Amino acid sequence: MKVLASILIFFTAFFSIAQDHPNLILTSEGVNSIRSSLGKTPLFDQTVETARQQVDAQIAAGIDVPIPKDLAGGYTHERHKSNFFTMQKAGVLFQITGEEKYAIYIRDMLLQYAEMYPTLGKHPAERSYARGKFFWQCLNDANWLVYTSQAYDCIYDWIDKKTQKKLNKELFRPYAEYISIENPQFFNRIHNHSTWGNAGVGMIGLVMDDDELVDWALRGLDIKVSGDFVKDNDGGAIQLEGQKEAGFFAQLDHAFSPDGYYTEGPYYQRYAMYPFLIFAQGLANKKPELGILEYREGLLIKAVYALIDQTNSAGEFFPINDAQKGMSLASRELVNAVSMAYHYGGKDAELLSLIEAQGRVPLNDSGLSAASGITSGDTKQYIFKSQELTDGANGNEGAIGILRNGDLTLMMKYAKHGMGHGHFDRLGFLLYDGEKEVIQDYGSARWVNIEHKDGGGYLKENNSWAKQTIAHNTLVVDKDSHFDGNVEAAEKSSGTPYYFSSSDKVQLVSAKELNAYDGIQMQRTMAILDVEELEKPLVIDLFSVQAPQATRYDLPLYYLGEVMSSNQQFQTNNDLTPMGDNDGYQHLWLEAQTELKSDVFRMTWFHEKNFYTQTSTVLEGDQALLTRIGANDPNFNLRRDPGLIHRRIGGNTLFASLYELHGRYSYADEIPINSFTSIANLEVLHESENYVAIHFQLKSGEKYEFVFSLNDKKDRSEHKIELDSGNLEWIGPFSFKKNN
Amino acid sequence: MKVLASILIFFTAFFSIAQDHPNLILTSEGVNSIRSSLGKTPLFDQTVETARQQVDAQIAAGIDVPIPKDLAGGYTHERHKSNFFTMQKAGVLFQITGEEKYAIYIRDMLLQYAEMYPTLGKHPAERSYARGKFFWQCLNDANWLVYTSQAYDCIYDWIDKKTQKKLNKELFRPYAEYISIENPQFFNRIHNHSTWGNAGVGMIGLVMDDDELVDWALRGLDIKVSGDFVKDNDGGAIQLEGQKEAGFFAQLDHAFSPDGYYTEGPYYQRYAMYPFLIFAQGLANKKPELGILEYREGLLIKAVYALIDQTNSAGEFFPINDAQKGMSLASRELVNAVSMAYHYGGKDAELLSLIEAQGRVPLNDSGLSAASGITSGDTKQYIFKSQELTDGANGNEGAIGILRNGDLTLMMKYAKHGMGHGHFDRLGFLLYDGEKEVIQDYGSARWVNIEHKDGGGYLKENNSWAKQTIAHNTLVVDKDSHFDGNVEAAEKSSGTPYYFSSSDKVQLVSAKELNAYDGIQMQRTMAILDVEELEKPLVIDLFSVQAPQATRYDLPLYYLGEVMSSNQQFQTNNDLTPMGDNDGYQHLWLEAQTELKSDVFRMTWFHEKNFYTQTSTVLEGDQALLTRIGANDPNFNLRRDPGLIHRRIGGNTLFASLYELHGRYSYADEIPINSFTSIANLEVLHESENYVAIHFQLKSGEKYEFVFSLNDKKDRSEHKIELDSGNLEWIGPFSFKKNN
Repeated sequence: MKVLASILIFFTAFFSIAQDHPNLILTSEGVNSIRSSLGKTPLFDQTVETARQQVDAQIAAGIDVPIPKDLAGGYTHERHKSNFFTMQKAGVLFQITGEEKYAIYIRDMLLQYAEMYPTLGKHPAERSYARGKFFWQCLNDANWLVYTSQAYDCIYDWIDKKTQKKLNKELFRPYAEYISIENPQFFNRIHNHSTWGNAGVGMIGLVMDDDELVDWALRGLDIKVSGDFVKDNDGGAIQLEGQKEAGFFAQLDHAFSPDGYYTEGPYYQRYAMYPFLIFAQGLANKKPELGILEYREGLLIKAVYALIDQTNSAGEFFPINDAQKGMSLASRELVNAVSMAYHYGGKDAELLSLIEAQGRVPLNDSGLSAASGITSGDTKQYIFKSQELTDGANGNEGAIGILRNGDLTLMMKYAKHGMGHGHFDRLGFLLYDGEKEVIQDYGSARWVNIEHKDGGGYLKENNSWAKQTIAHNTLVVDKDSHFDGNVEAAEKSSGTPYYFSSSDKVQLVSAKELNAYDGIQMQRTMAILDVEELEKPLVIDLFSVQAPQATRYDLPLYYLGEVMSSNQQFQTNNDLTPMGDNDGYQHLWLEAQTELKSDVFRMTWFHEKNFYTQTSTVLEGDQALLTRIGANDPNFNLRRDPGLIHRRIGGNTLFASLYELHGRYSYADEIPINSFTSIANLEVLHESENYVAIHFQLKSGEKYEFVFSLNDKKDRSEHKIELDSGNLEWIGPFSFKKNN
Repeated sequence: MKVLASILIFFTAFFSIAQDHPNLILTSEGVNSIRSSLGKTPLFDQTVETARQQVDAQIAAGIDVPIPKDLAGGYTHERHKSNFFTMQKAGVLFQITGEEKYAIYIRDMLLQYAEMYPTLGKHPAERSYARGKFFWQCLNDANWLVYTSQAYDCIYDWIDKKTQKKLNKELFRPYAEYISIENPQFFNRIHNHSTWGNAGVGMIGLVMDDDELVDWALRGLDIKVSGDFVKDNDGGAIQLEGQKEAGFFAQLDHAFSPDGYYTEGPYYQRYAMYPFLIFAQGLANKKPELGILEYREGLLIKAVYALIDQTNSAGEFFPINDAQKGMSLASRELVNAVSMAYHYGGKDAELLSLIEAQGRVPLNDSGLSAASGITSGDTKQYIFKSQELTDGANGNEGAIGILRNGDLTLMMKYAKHGMGHGHFDRLGFLLYDGEKEVIQDYGSARWVNIEHKDGGGYLKENNSWAKQTIAHNTLVVDKDSHFDGNVEAAEKSSGTPYYFSSSDKVQLVSAKELNAYDGIQMQRTMAILDVEELEKPLVIDLFSVQAPQATRYDLPLYYLGEVMSSNQQFQTNNDLTPMGDNDGYQHLWLEAQTELKSDVFRMTWFHEKNFYTQTSTVLEGDQALLTRIGANDPNFNLRRDPGLIHRRIGGNTLFASLYELHGRYSYADEIPINSFTSIANLEVLHESENYVAIHFQLKSGEKYEFVFSLNDKKDRSEHKIELDSGNLEWIGPFSFKKNN
């Protein structure tokens, strides 16, 4: 604390003259608050200290601004990336501590960039639809500008006017022009790439008081994109159908649903949120008249909550669409986002528990605000709730449904396709037991930034496997992916939310998919039930299909773990060949199969200390197939994960299953507890276009009945199904009851 | 603490008359100390509280002594197992708290056992070579007796004489006779089964003052085992060659090496230690004249240390021989063993750090002693050291070598076979990065006690896969397992320790195997080197073979993780067939192969946040094969783990490799650090019957040279190898130096 004291004395002299800057993310008032809080808010102080260590180490190592050459993961790429992160932190440290070495470091590095900039053509790597200057793609250059403009703002008043003018004119303005008017195919899209572009250009415009740049950023360019640019490298459209606007406001209008859901999914939302939020903070400070944080009923804050709510109990995002697993609330983007949502979004004390878990705060007003809240003991536990998040700018283009009960989290997806990063996974679901995947979504086939794996970009197996329908826990008809694997076709429609309910005893989501296959209507209804005799809640899965006779169905279940036992006799294969030629089947080995016998098919598996059992009803001719990912994988890009496919040939039909989480086993005591299913029987009582009804019995004798109305969800509708065994009658969309 | 206070008052009355019992594990004096310490030693109090909750719950649930029927994992098996654990705890609680309900519970349960006992024949399951009464094998019955005799001791003076006499005569004596004189093939072996048998019979003998039983336990039976019993169910010999003695002393003489290593390996040592230690405590208390804890220079305490030292940094035992992975210092056996070693072995404060991690102590004198040490703040961190642990009763039948440096743990095995639970793995090794396996030993093919998997016993894949040489990280010649997979042949010899050294800069183990293959001499030399330019220590692996021309070698490496990249072009296969018909090859798929090009073969893989690279020298004609376990596995009993086989056809040869642990990657920041190998080149300078010499160069330019003398390990011997590039000269068994 001695150091801090001497800093405070220093400030009195240093900041005695009026300052225009910083006024982007840090403000002069904010800096004053931060200085007077130093030494009093442990989490903030600790973050300052960490930043100081990181930046001091970089300063000691010396400045390096290499000629751009490498792809992601390579030296020049990682160096320029590290440079902008370090400059941003150094800027803040300069403001907080007043130590000039930080300003000097930034200035000298910027001068080297200014020196190099005019000598550069496009980056030598040619793979991007929008090649950058310092990086292989404009996207990374925009990242650089978003971070560097913050650093520049922090030293703007400190540098001499001549240097300021030189940097403005020779580095920043031309660089901002490069990623905007020189690359409209990058800047003028409705896409996370453009969000970064808009933010970078807008933020440097705010710093330099360059209103033209700010205007481009907010409203987009009045430039027609050359017809050469139709799709980006991931197959995403450059120009959306009917797209009239561009720029930051258009991104806000189009990218998020009114619930704050981002159509590309949480992995990309996390990435996109940073420029949305950081630019919004700059605008709030410098152009409060825009009311950016109140725009669309506080959309940006809602979007942070939507992101938080799309996680398992380790804070890891649901890996839907293109997503590398493991990305989480611990990321730097969320460190910014959650503190900002706290500060600007009404000081929700539940957010503080997430911030405590993050263990660091951003070095700005939001971070101080959050750290102070924690120091004051305001923290409350964040409560994750069951909820449906709508997709589409107007909230009417599908949704995702999140059901939570105790340790159990289930997510079903019936949203829009998710543009270039979308997967063909309508009505797919994933299931967690705490932080552990029980039924997994494969995620993307990519090792982000790891140069060994094709430079860290998307691998070809991402298209051939990860995006295909068979890679997901949803129905495949006639071995074809949804929409024949065509992104444009998939973009034209969304899943159809039908019913969502979260009561104490039953949590339920039901949605329809009418477009993925011509002439076929699918509806999936999933529920989490509290069954008092079971140790954990039970999951029901009712997948109804209306289709022509002789349709071939494959319903995969990507369980994780080791097969324990089944009530069926599988025949394992000693010659393995790929299961098909396309639509993802070419990546699957068929390890074993069986013609299903008896009324139910049951399989128990074990995964990291717990047991799981699926129980499904069987129709004559049904088959079960045990698969393994890994065929046609010349570079070992795919994980050798197991799968289970329920195969059926039929017309209108119902796949009815129960998923049970049960028991435990510890390797230190070797005593299995509750390792067997508690379900004695499962039976379909009725299936038709309008209703599904099932019945199951526990081994302990109790009987339960679940019925659901597929086309009439009115609360007061009376329903009746006539059965030989007695009629089923109920009121409202569903009924779940014990029958003894 | 209010409860404890009232207990203390109660004691004053209850224990005012002199007591003979307890005097087995608890003693009257020990009980007094425990009572006066209650409320003062948190860890002990907490363990008492946990025990009380467990036992109270069992008492509330009521006594159940079912007619024996099931195998391990089944209800009657688990019930009887739970009964003896509960009785043992209830006995201690009765002594500590004086609450009679605990004594009543034990008495009533024992009376039910006494009622049932005379009605029982052998257990209905017929698979064991020594069928039990309450359990399917005598082994479990002996477990019952070891625990139950402790409970009985605690209530011996409390029950009325008539009941005492009835239990002695109708339950305990006949039961002790059953597992001894009626099953000498179980009781009279040198084997962990017999240790349990000896302990159970001896302990109940000590409780009942039945010296005949104690004598049988200590000295074995003078009974010839029927010729029908030659092997047990695991293929272990009932009678060891030349075996003259049996009983507890013979177990002590034969089972442990002078270093405390147990020939079956740590998984079974952990299991066997409990009866050794608990019976020894009983003998120490009741027959101090035997000096059991001083026997063979304090062997039993040494054995506890040997067990502690055979773990990774999560306290998990090396899974050599038949061993289920994950068994660890957290097991109940080790909770007893470590506290006992602390109490009886000189109060080594380093053990307290392990006991703190265990989080509980045994409810006896040792547990109180350890808990008091922790309460007094005596704890020191346990330091795991590099060491060689000899095998064989006299310490001259092979060994295992453990090298440790920072997070890195390497273990090489050149011990005896390990009897019926041994694997054909001479000169095999395993490597850990902290608690994480880098190069794994498969362990056993078994899910202990999990009824789904063949009742929780050994699976047939344990013999067909897990025991075979190809399942281990050691050399396979001509696709045959060591000793042709014959346990008796393997038992006749051991590996030959050659050299072990642990200096600051180089830790080294070298051993020979002269018997596994006729006419073939193998020697493996592994070292961990501190190389200043590398972030972690480097592992050298030099496997020399003297063999006829045209011998076919397969050297497997069971790396764990995902392949990142290689400098070789692998061809992957789209039709998989098993790699062979026997010796374990029938369980391997060949996923990819390549003819090795260039001077070195390099492969990098990624496993849970870190990167690993192997670099091996290549001879013309060498192949590399990427394998996957899982063929011929009808019940999905095997994990789908990857492997890498270096294949060579040749005569005298050297396999030279480096293993490098490097870099890291976090999914929350997606920045790979040091993801590429730092090794530019590896070269064999010389290989012959007498020497191996290698040279490697880092990418940063530094060159290193390692030379080793294979047949002369004298410290002062001078060695010289003439090379075209200049002679290598050094003194002593090895030299490692930087050449610049």
